[in-house]
Amino acid sequence: MPATPAWPPRSAPRLFVAGPLAEGAAIVLEGNPAHYLAKVMRVSPGDAVILCDDLTGEWASRVASVGKREVELDVAERLRAREAVPDLWLCPALLKKDRFDLVLEKATELGVAEIHPVVTRRCVADKLNPERARALSVEAAEQCARTALPVLTGPVPLAALLRDWPTGRTLFFADEHGGDAAAAAFAARPGPAALLIGPEGGFDEAERAAIRALPLASPISLGPRILRGETAAITAISVWMAAAGDW
Amino acid sequence: MPATPAWPPRSAPRLFVAGPLAEGAAIVLEGNPAHYLAKVMRVSPGDAVILCDDLTGEWASRVASVGKREVELDVAERLRAREAVPDLWLCPALLKKDRFDLVLEKATELGVAEIHPVVTRRCVADKLNPERARALSVEAAEQCARTALPVLTGPVPLAALLRDWPTGRTLFFADEHGGDAAAAAFAARPGPAALLIGPEGGFDEAERAAIRALPLASPISLGPRILRGETAAITAISVWMAAAGDW
Repeated sequence: MPATPAWPPRSAPRLFVAGPLAEGAAIVLEGNPAHYLAKVMRVSPGDAVILCDDLTGEWASRVASVGKREVELDVAERLRAREAVPDLWLCPALLKKDRFDLVLEKATELGVAEIHPVVTRRCVADKLNPERARALSVEAAEQCARTALPVLTGPVPLAALLRDWPTGRTLFFADEHGGDAAAAAFAARPGPAALLIGPEGGFDEAERAAIRALPLASPISLGPRILRGETAAITAISVWMAAAGDW
Repeated sequence: MPATPAWPPRSAPRLFVAGPLAEGAAIVLEGNPAHYLAKVMRVSPGDAVILCDDLTGEWASRVASVGKREVELDVAERLRAREAVPDLWLCPALLKKDRFDLVLEKATELGVAEIHPVVTRRCVADKLNPERARALSVEAAEQCARTALPVLTGPVPLAALLRDWPTGRTLFFADEHGGDAAAAAFAARPGPAALLIGPEGGFDEAERAAIRALPLASPISLGPRILRGETAAITAISVWMAAAGDW
């Protein structure tokens, strides 16, 4: 006898929606998500759609109706609870758009809990479109079957980030003038952590002094080669996850 | 008294050229490099240009003349010898173009010694434009002031890669069915290493069996979250560099 086919199929479209989701709930989607399901994925009534709400987890649903402007879904059973992610923040200096997009996408994929963009003296950008940034992060989570989204705040000046730094969270910062080898530094200071990554050209002298004045700051080195800003961010997250995260 | 200005300035254009370079040599550039210097960077006679040849290292040169189709440079002193890089190969399955471009760029930046693209069953791409791939890698090296380029071979089928696997080089492969935690596995088997990264969807069962049959193969895990192919490659390189490379 053939095995019972798995439902929902792995190829089912996956979407984050406003929650909270619950069994038996009817969800009505409009705008971009409705367009995506109806025109891009061409769903029909009865088709499976996987829904997440970044709160209760991941649910199977069935398409109830496909209208001109809206798609209605009936929520069936919960497939997974919202996943836990390690307590890591990323505080990346703003970069040019495509480079910062990459930071948002990869930080989401790698499971960072919170992203706090920072504006420093040498940043060439000082603005971030919050809706666009959020959409990028959601798309990355959908593609990698994540059930948790990172918290994403608006950019703050470095001085404000340091002034309001929470107690008990180590601030590892990539210091081009040298620091402890990253993996050893991460393993030596487990617990709540944040990675502060400068822009192309790094922090200036006054900024480095201000960061180092924070008792929770810990300078790290990301090796002997010059890395671009987005590479430093992705690399530092990877090494932290392996040394102090949940790998 | 003001300090003697540094020459060449840090902002000088940086180019890889065919070598070997030597003091007093005259280099004539045509095509894209000449266009870049003359039209994009708008150099004039006397301006500094930094040259690398992936062989002898990094040299300062001065523009001798700017013609309609060529730029002539006089090579002055050597600034640095070609850097040594850790003995790490990357064997990445081909991905869609923009995703594979990212692998080439970041592998170069992070200091991989050799890149051997691989074709597997689930690859959606099976071709690579070697000139374009080479140009991407060179551009990444120029932007990060690297003096060494990775060796870059044409794509080979996975079976051929395994059949011709060199003795003495550990083949760490990202196994979605689980393996040792990457950082610990890397630290436990120092020495010549390679990272084999599958395409979206991973290796199929026959491929996994063939890889595991290689005595030098070592399955590794890159954590509990699903990573895209290019992210797995960048992440694995980062963790290897931190655990077994030259950080």
